[in-house]
Amino acid sequence: MDDPVLVEVMRGGAVESRHRIALVVSDAEGRPLVALGDVARPVFPRSAVKVIQALPVVESGAADAYGFGAREIALSTASHNGEVFHVETAAAMLARAGKAEPDLECGAHWPNREDDHGLIHRTTGKPTQLHNNCSGKHAGFVCFACHTGLDPRGYVGRDHPVQRMIEAALADVTRTDLAKVPVGTDGCAIPTYAIPLAALATGFARLATGIGLAPERGRAAARILEACIAEPQMIAGTDRFDTDFIRAIDGAAYVKVGAEGVYCAAFPKLGLGVALKCADGHPRAAEVAMATVAAHLLGRRDDPALARFLTPELKNWNGTLVGGLRPTAEFEAAVRSLAA
Amino acid sequence: MDDPVLVEVMRGGAVESRHRIALVVSDAEGRPLVALGDVARPVFPRSAVKVIQALPVVESGAADAYGFGAREIALSTASHNGEVFHVETAAAMLARAGKAEPDLECGAHWPNREDDHGLIHRTTGKPTQLHNNCSGKHAGFVCFACHTGLDPRGYVGRDHPVQRMIEAALADVTRTDLAKVPVGTDGCAIPTYAIPLAALATGFARLATGIGLAPERGRAAARILEACIAEPQMIAGTDRFDTDFIRAIDGAAYVKVGAEGVYCAAFPKLGLGVALKCADGHPRAAEVAMATVAAHLLGRRDDPALARFLTPELKNWNGTLVGGLRPTAEFEAAVRSLAA
Repeated sequence: MDDPVLVEVMRGGAVESRHRIALVVSDAEGRPLVALGDVARPVFPRSAVKVIQALPVVESGAADAYGFGAREIALSTASHNGEVFHVETAAAMLARAGKAEPDLECGAHWPNREDDHGLIHRTTGKPTQLHNNCSGKHAGFVCFACHTGLDPRGYVGRDHPVQRMIEAALADVTRTDLAKVPVGTDGCAIPTYAIPLAALATGFARLATGIGLAPERGRAAARILEACIAEPQMIAGTDRFDTDFIRAIDGAAYVKVGAEGVYCAAFPKLGLGVALKCADGHPRAAEVAMATVAAHLLGRRDDPALARFLTPELKNWNGTLVGGLRPTAEFEAAVRSLAA
Repeated sequence: MDDPVLVEVMRGGAVESRHRIALVVSDAEGRPLVALGDVARPVFPRSAVKVIQALPVVESGAADAYGFGAREIALSTASHNGEVFHVETAAAMLARAGKAEPDLECGAHWPNREDDHGLIHRTTGKPTQLHNNCSGKHAGFVCFACHTGLDPRGYVGRDHPVQRMIEAALADVTRTDLAKVPVGTDGCAIPTYAIPLAALATGFARLATGIGLAPERGRAAARILEACIAEPQMIAGTDRFDTDFIRAIDGAAYVKVGAEGVYCAAFPKLGLGVALKCADGHPRAAEVAMATVAAHLLGRRDDPALARFLTPELKNWNGTLVGGLRPTAEFEAAVRSLAA
């Protein structure tokens, strides 16, 4: 099944580029409210499932043992910018377990923001693993291992007990037999398991409601989602969609980007989950699609405060408006009935 | 007409993302050797037609009057990295006409490479318009204006004589009535005219052969293409597809990237032009598509030296191979018959 064109890139009044997207909204029982494109095809959710990957840190008691507050719990689910407060918080999390940057196995990369490049160029000259957008998640992994008496070394490997616990949590929340799906390696070296969008959306509805989860897991999920919604700057950062959109909708949902055009979201009050993938992997279109479906679900499609997310502008290097992105008419028609 | 999926992104042995692409190979008479997808739909060629935009600089005599060699002519067609040698050459071009950085109207942006970010952070703290990837083209525009007695101020505007000359050259080379097509504003502030891929491919075959062009225009085109092929580091730079691929095929073609997934190419010895657009605007897939069609045209599909362009690897932050891009079987089948 071909995924429909849900987002267009405009320039000079014409459509310049087109993005095909598969998208599903589901309740916790797996009933789809809307399903566009091939939502049964397994996709690598990448970082969009970090909130599930963080469950063992809370469920094991590691978060409490090391005194993690909402900031630390949120960072353990983050794809962050590598800003100073992200880096320092990840380092502090490791320190609680007697560990440090060399104990991470995520690799190093430059942070997202030019200001932070400048800071590094004027000082050490190169980024560390703490700047990796996944450093908070990995710090959580190391803390989980230490708290439960596991040797954290090799914690990124599929057969390490840390990853086995995460795989079990993913399989449980999404009700997917991960032994039978393609397994890839993510940018930060841990396994990523291909899961159908429909199963991901239902899984996020379970996280949002606790329905279908063991009570302890439901409580851990609620605690993590609350932390992320309370401290959205920790899960992404300055000028990032996830952070800014959660603020703009007054915390009515948790939204999380994954690489290659994936987005997942949990709507606690609505009891719904959303999962989508831009077929070509482009995050710009995935953002517009998530904003559009979320705005309709919240009955805020015409709220001016959300316009910059639904129809972001494109400017040239002189700051002149040259075009923008927008949801297609087909997309709007398909999600209009969702309005709260 | 839907464009076919020509390039796939692989991870863990599975297809993670898919790119639809329209592509056409044409001779100078407009006979298509292969046409995939909707090649009649007008597309903004963006920077892929810089070689045409540079024609007036050479045809007017400005290039000779200011002593431009192959390096300066190549830079006037560039989407460069903003490396030191690019910045210095653009500044020197302007100086020949008694002009300098403030006379540019392209806007400033950070250069592509981290090393060059570091240089700026440790010195001035911010990039200039000379770092703009289009600064060589704009320096050429300013030199063209000065040499022909025009006031360069406002040279980016559609109604300025500089842009009128460029519009006429585009209309001539592509045989397209630009009064009837969508017009947008490019990232560097000049107009971009939507032109069908088929017309672009035929135009590039004309540039490659001189067939259908006025003799003076044909000579200027040949001189510019020769300059770009002789000095490929000037049109892009370190670790860039255009530069590296032209070197890898021993200068057998000129290839040029445009924003939003456009590529054009001229094959002088084969007398052919190529134009393609990745529907979603992603450059990674446009590069693989250009490499694939070029390799087939040159009879080098199985040349190991070209493998890194046709099937580029994806590595994670630890340097581990996690996947890669590849042309689809459908794509290979469609272009196999082109083999020289």
